[in-house]
Amino acid sequence: MVLGLDPDPARLWPGAGDAAAGAGHTRTPAGAAAAAVEAHCRAVLDAVADVVVAVKPQLACFERLGAPGRAALGRVTEHAQAAGLLVLADAKRGDIDVSALAYAQSLLGTTATPFGEVAGLGADAMTASPYMGTDTIAPLLRTARAVGAGVIVLVRTSNPGAADFEDLELASGGTVWEEVARRVDALGEPGPESGLSDVGAVVGATAPQHVARLRAIMPSTPFLLPGVGAQGGRVEDLAPAFAPGPAGGLITASRSIVRAHEADGASADPAAAARAEAERLRAVAWGLA
Amino acid sequence: MVLGLDPDPARLWPGAGDAAAGAGHTRTPAGAAAAAVEAHCRAVLDAVADVVVAVKPQLACFERLGAPGRAALGRVTEHAQAAGLLVLADAKRGDIDVSALAYAQSLLGTTATPFGEVAGLGADAMTASPYMGTDTIAPLLRTARAVGAGVIVLVRTSNPGAADFEDLELASGGTVWEEVARRVDALGEPGPESGLSDVGAVVGATAPQHVARLRAIMPSTPFLLPGVGAQGGRVEDLAPAFAPGPAGGLITASRSIVRAHEADGASADPAAAARAEAERLRAVAWGLA
Repeated sequence: MVLGLDPDPARLWPGAGDAAAGAGHTRTPAGAAAAAVEAHCRAVLDAVADVVVAVKPQLACFERLGAPGRAALGRVTEHAQAAGLLVLADAKRGDIDVSALAYAQSLLGTTATPFGEVAGLGADAMTASPYMGTDTIAPLLRTARAVGAGVIVLVRTSNPGAADFEDLELASGGTVWEEVARRVDALGEPGPESGLSDVGAVVGATAPQHVARLRAIMPSTPFLLPGVGAQGGRVEDLAPAFAPGPAGGLITASRSIVRAHEADGASADPAAAARAEAERLRAVAWGLA
Repeated sequence: MVLGLDPDPARLWPGAGDAAAGAGHTRTPAGAAAAAVEAHCRAVLDAVADVVVAVKPQLACFERLGAPGRAALGRVTEHAQAAGLLVLADAKRGDIDVSALAYAQSLLGTTATPFGEVAGLGADAMTASPYMGTDTIAPLLRTARAVGAGVIVLVRTSNPGAADFEDLELASGGTVWEEVARRVDALGEPGPESGLSDVGAVVGATAPQHVARLRAIMPSTPFLLPGVGAQGGRVEDLAPAFAPGPAGGLITASRSIVRAHEADGASADPAAAARAEAERLRAVAWGLA
């Protein structure tokens, strides 16, 4: 199980806002909101840290809070890693070579400057968009390999619009997503112990009819499977993802865990409800692996 | 002409590093590098502000400097807008609906929070990736329209890897980029005065053989044309971009302007060389329009 963190400053856990009071850097709305978001993320992490293996922060939710949001993302990343979790930066970046390298420096590596080395976020993996081609993935992968991190490429996503371009039928047969899957399989190298590829694939849990086909094209690729819960995907439909082993499928749930208490009324304990839902999803996933 | 800003902390204009000394926030490598990058960008902007109409900051180059980099990007944006320039945030974002909305809040709009409204970057437009489909563009466009900004979608990019997926031939005829172009044309609405669409397209200047075809599919779409100079594109080959008028083509140059002085030896004046190169490119472009 992977915990998605998509914090909305207007829907944080009770008490998170208390962190926004007092400290000097919280005098601006951005500073106060970032402090509250950070407190919320820490509380969610503490509730489920021993049930999940990784956390997937949605970078957009931190970036909209400006520089304080970026600082909060850094501290949430450190907190998760201190709890033994992997951090998968959900960035979906894709750009020409020199810019892709800058994104890799930002999220996985470091930047050499005349003023000293600037640390990046230090994530364990980042998501990437393939639209512009494999030469926009290569700099991410070079940096990832240098620091023991991974890259996870969008292949067939969980949103309805995936039909627009990903599903287009090719003159040579198959779809755009099948061609992307072939390239992702070719880019990866197997890890020394797990045998799993170091290039992952985002495979939406909302289109389970494609999971077996994607597993056939990418036999040793870790699948990151978002779309369970709020987006309508069901863990029970994802068995082919686990063919290479329990680590072959990383089921991601965000709102269904973090907002599990909302179904239980105003007096519900968010931490207990989140933990229970994460445990329930994990048990279903383990039944498949 | 659009000035691309892709600042590399190791290759800034002489004197930019002076800004990194002294101030309290510059004690960390990230703070010092961000201060130097900001000073460099201000100097470049001041040199060419009356020759270009817009500036295109590459967000990756600021993000790799962490929270101080984001703060510097905000100040560079304000400086450019104060000089009368449009700011096109080169972000290439693309994500599911709620996350796309967060990116739109981050770059174009604002975020409502219980702690007050958090201002975004305030850019005049942002670039977006189409891979995940038009439902990932729609939230960007709704926000852009609410604040009078624009969205510029990757269609056929300037890098060699564009051949991998953008150029795939479809069973229905044409290529992936032609289908993306049709959707971009359909998404846009004409501006009240210019008649130009409010959804632009990124069209690489390195593949001029496609520009006429793209103009036929998107007759009123503004084209953002990167790839001139360092990437090998030639302004002279881009005439079809200007069919709807002088504003139909936004030719972007980054390194060829900012590093123009490097060809002239160590004693060259970077500002004078940048201004001369921007004026030269503008004159060629005006000859086409």
